[in-house]
This record gives sequence, structure tokens and C-alpha cells, in this order.
Amino acid sequence: MTRDDRTPVTVVGLGSMGAALAEAFVKAGHPTTVWNRTATKAAALVAKGAIHAEAVEDAVAASPLIIACLTTYDDTRQALEPATGALQGRALVTLNSGSPAGAREMAAWAIGYGARFLDGAIKNIPSAVAAPDTLLYYSGDKTVFDEYETTLKVLGGDTVHLGDESDLAALYEMAVGGTLLPALVGFFQGAAAVQARGLEASTLVRFTVKWFEMINSVLPTFAHEIDSGDYTKPASSVNLFLAGAAHDEELGREANIDVAWHAPLHDLLKTAVEAGHGDHSISALTEVLKKP
Amino acid sequence: MTRDDRTPVTVVGLGSMGAALAEAFVKAGHPTTVWNRTATKAAALVAKGAIHAEAVEDAVAASPLIIACLTTYDDTRQALEPATGALQGRALVTLNSGSPAGAREMAAWAIGYGARFLDGAIKNIPSAVAAPDTLLYYSGDKTVFDEYETTLKVLGGDTVHLGDESDLAALYEMAVGGTLLPALVGFFQGAAAVQARGLEASTLVRFTVKWFEMINSVLPTFAHEIDSGDYTKPASSVNLFLAGAAHDEELGREANIDVAWHAPLHDLLKTAVEAGHGDHSISALTEVLKKP
Repeated sequence: MTRDDRTPVTVVGLGSMGAALAEAFVKAGHPTTVWNRTATKAAALVAKGAIHAEAVEDAVAASPLIIACLTTYDDTRQALEPATGALQGRALVTLNSGSPAGAREMAAWAIGYGARFLDGAIKNIPSAVAAPDTLLYYSGDKTVFDEYETTLKVLGGDTVHLGDESDLAALYEMAVGGTLLPALVGFFQGAAAVQARGLEASTLVRFTVKWFEMINSVLPTFAHEIDSGDYTKPASSVNLFLAGAAHDEELGREANIDVAWHAPLHDLLKTAVEAGHGDHSISALTEVLKKP
Repeated sequence: MTRDDRTPVTVVGLGSMGAALAEAFVKAGHPTTVWNRTATKAAALVAKGAIHAEAVEDAVAASPLIIACLTTYDDTRQALEPATGALQGRALVTLNSGSPAGAREMAAWAIGYGARFLDGAIKNIPSAVAAPDTLLYYSGDKTVFDEYETTLKVLGGDTVHLGDESDLAALYEMAVGGTLLPALVGFFQGAAAVQARGLEASTLVRFTVKWFEMINSVLPTFAHEIDSGDYTKPASSVNLFLAGAAHDEELGREANIDVAWHAPLHDLLKTAVEAGHGDHSISALTEVLKKP
């Protein structure tokens, strides 16, 4: 396949993720136009074969498929504002973090200018872009997804369309992403604990990796309990977790670290017990998190 | 290899994990003596080939290697109290949750009765016992580990001795285990969010699995930052996480779920910024968790 067989693509926003996306398109042989508010960020990509557009209007006009990778939907609209006249009939794909409400607003804005709109999320780090098992999911105009699926798969082989509603990708991104900071702080706390003993944080890595693999292995069971609403056959009960809560305090004392961030989690366990979930699966916490 | 070539093993405590351990020994051809306070729990194991001891003294006297799998170290001492006279010269391995201080106390108790002591942790669920990649780690008397390593590997192929200090396994167990409840609550919150949209929690599983795999892929980098104390080349900065904190609130509003448990995590981010870590790696939270 020659370079000319490839769909031209424009990448707007060249932060570390945007630059990785543009580089993947260049490497895959797509004519790749790039634009960034700070033009200097384009230089490294131009050296690799990308085309730099000075004006965002020219960047948008250069390709039928525009990938915007800015920090927020607001940033995206602000960057594209001078180019709205060129959006008509083009496919605009946003790959930024944001809320479902933000995605709906973004979709209305894009569609208002005649663009075909797809919102997406890349659930990984820049260095994972273009890997065969890297996951990206999209929602919105299915015809855009179908038409450009091969091109979008340049960014990651595990590419999914969640549905026609433009905000589903943002919903899933928030639903999935909510585990990140809590899980990391748990790891950092463990790192501080082994350091307090004069051991290296790196000694913790292989055990934590196995631990998250174990957690992954039990998620289907928890999801089934949550979907069925039947929490009565627990592998691990709320009471068992509540008994283990004391270990967080002991770790704090042992290693002189701040474990106060666990308190609201322990409160959730107590609320679950009060609601009659003591002998139920820990996944019954899902019900406690739902506001009346 | 005939059955008689195998080390006789005693398992004390037949909860779901203890029963899984005993069954693994029986299947591997070890003469396996079992004891539980509630004797009825032994019946299923006896049907599979285990030997039931009515008295814990007889259980301990039956084997050179005793595996105790009770809930706490206190429970373990209480169960073994009538059998202390039989502990002399035997290897006692405890596989329960507990603090490093608890492990030290347990070790002193066991050694006081002439036992050779090893504390361990099985970082998985009962159904994973005996799998080749199931992780168990031990600390304490290395001669016990060396002598019985093959036997201990019956319980899981990834078997590690952390060091001679009896409390290292408990330290690592707490350091690793501190991620569990926060990570799960993050998943349950996501489940509640997709359910609020009329979607099944099970649709979240494959994305969350990938997400934890992504987290696993960045742990070595974070550990290196923490060990070197150099947080100045961030893949993800504290400020970036603080900007994303608003998404937790938005998810709460969007799906009518309680996200208050994130507040202390956001406070940690703010404290890190105040301490000058705003542009540093998120792993700098490790320093904020350490008490002065």
C-alpha cells in the first residue's frame, strides 16, 4: 500500500499524547497534518514526516478526519473556534478527558457546525499508542467509526465503538478511571511502608502486579453480583473487609504514615453493615454508593 | 513417586482458604491431617483422603510441618494452645492476615515452644490455590523454607522467601493489600455509574481489566521515582491529577452516586501541591503520606 492509499489525518493538540498519536499516523504512512497553539511542538513531528499547518483552519481543511487531543472539551472548542467554517462534512474525533455532560455539549457544538462527531478515550499512556492491545473506545456517529475504523486502529489495536450516544465514551472513561488515584495511593502507601523498613519500593512491584491481576480475576464475579443484585454468596464479605480495616491503622502506626484517607472507605463498610450487607459480598458496597 | 515419599502435612483451620490448602496437599499425595474447631468442616476433606484429628494435639503430632490458616494470630494461638507441648522441633507456618507486630508476637510465641517458625501470606483467592502462578510469600526461618519449599509449592508455584525477619511477610501483605478496598470501591462506583445509565456492570469489566494492566505497566516507573527520590520527570503530574479531580464530582452528579470518599485523596493532592510537588510525578504523594 502506498502512502497515497492512506486517509489523510489532522491532529490538533500536540501534548505528549497528541504527539504520540500524530507520530503513529506518520509511521503508518498517513499524510498527517499537525497543529498546536505553541507551534514549536510540531518541529519534532515535521522532522518525522508530518505536515505543519500554521493556522488551525488550514489544519482542519487538510484532512477529512480530524483528531483533537487537548486537555478539555473547552480547550478543544477554543482551539477549533477559528476553524468552525471548515468543519462542515468532516469527521471530528475528540480524545480528551471530560464528563458525559461535557461530551454532549461538545457533540452539539460540532454537529452545529456540520461536523460528524465521535468522542473517544485512550485508556493508556503515550508510549502505548499504536500497540496491538492498546484500548481506545469511542461513542457517537457510528458511520464515522465504520468509515475510519482501520485508520483509528493505527492508534491501538483494541478499538471499540460503545454506541451512538456521544457521551458513552466519557461515561465509561469516568467509570473506569475512578479506580486510578485510589489504587495508586494504595501503592504509594505500601511504598512508604517498605521504605520505612529500609527496603526499596521496587521490591513491592512484582507483588502488587500479581495483586492487581488477582483483582482483575474477581471482577467478573463482582459484576455478575451487581447486575443480578444477588450479594448473598460472597467470596469476601463486607464483615471480612471491616475486620481487615484495622490493618490499615496498624500499617499507619508501624510505618508512621498517614492512613486517614481510608476512613471514608471504612465508613462505607459500616454503612453497608447497618444496611444489612454485613454477610453479603463486598460488591454490595455498590448499593451503598447509590444515593437515594 | 509413591504417597509415602511425600512429607506429611497438618492443616489447622478449615475455612474456605484452609480447606483449599488441605485439598491441594491431598491431591498432591501428601498424607494430610486436618483439624478444625468445628469438626464437621473436615468431612468433605476426609472423603477426599485427608485424615481427621479429633484433638489439635494429635493434629500437630501427626506431621513435621503444620500449616495454620486461621483468621488472626490470636485465633491461631488460641487454637494451638492445647498442642503447645507437641510443637517442639516442628515447623509451624502461619497463613493468616495480620500486622508485622502481630507476626513478631506470633513468632516469639512459637519459638518459645521450640517450634521453627515461618509466617506467610497467600495473595489470592481459595480457587487459585495450587495454580502454577499463584503467589505465596514467606518470611522467618529460612531453614524451614528450604527444607519444605517443594511441599509449600504445592499451594502455588510462585513461592518466595522474603527474608529471615518473621514480620516481613506481614509487612508486605499490608503494603500490597492496601490497594484492594480502594481499587474495588473505584470499580463499584463505576458499576453504579453505568447502571445509572441502564447499562450492565459487566460491560465495565474488560475495560477495567485493561486499566489495571495499564496501572501495572507504570508501577516500575513509579517505584524507581520513589526509590531515587527524583520526582521531576513526571509521566503524570500531581497538577494533572488535581485537574482530573473535578471528574469525580461530575461522575457523582451525573450518576447520583456518593463520591465523598475521594475527598481525602483530593486533599492529598492539594497538600502535595502546597509542598511544591505540583509539577512533580504523582508518585511524589508517597512523600506526603510519610508523617514527619
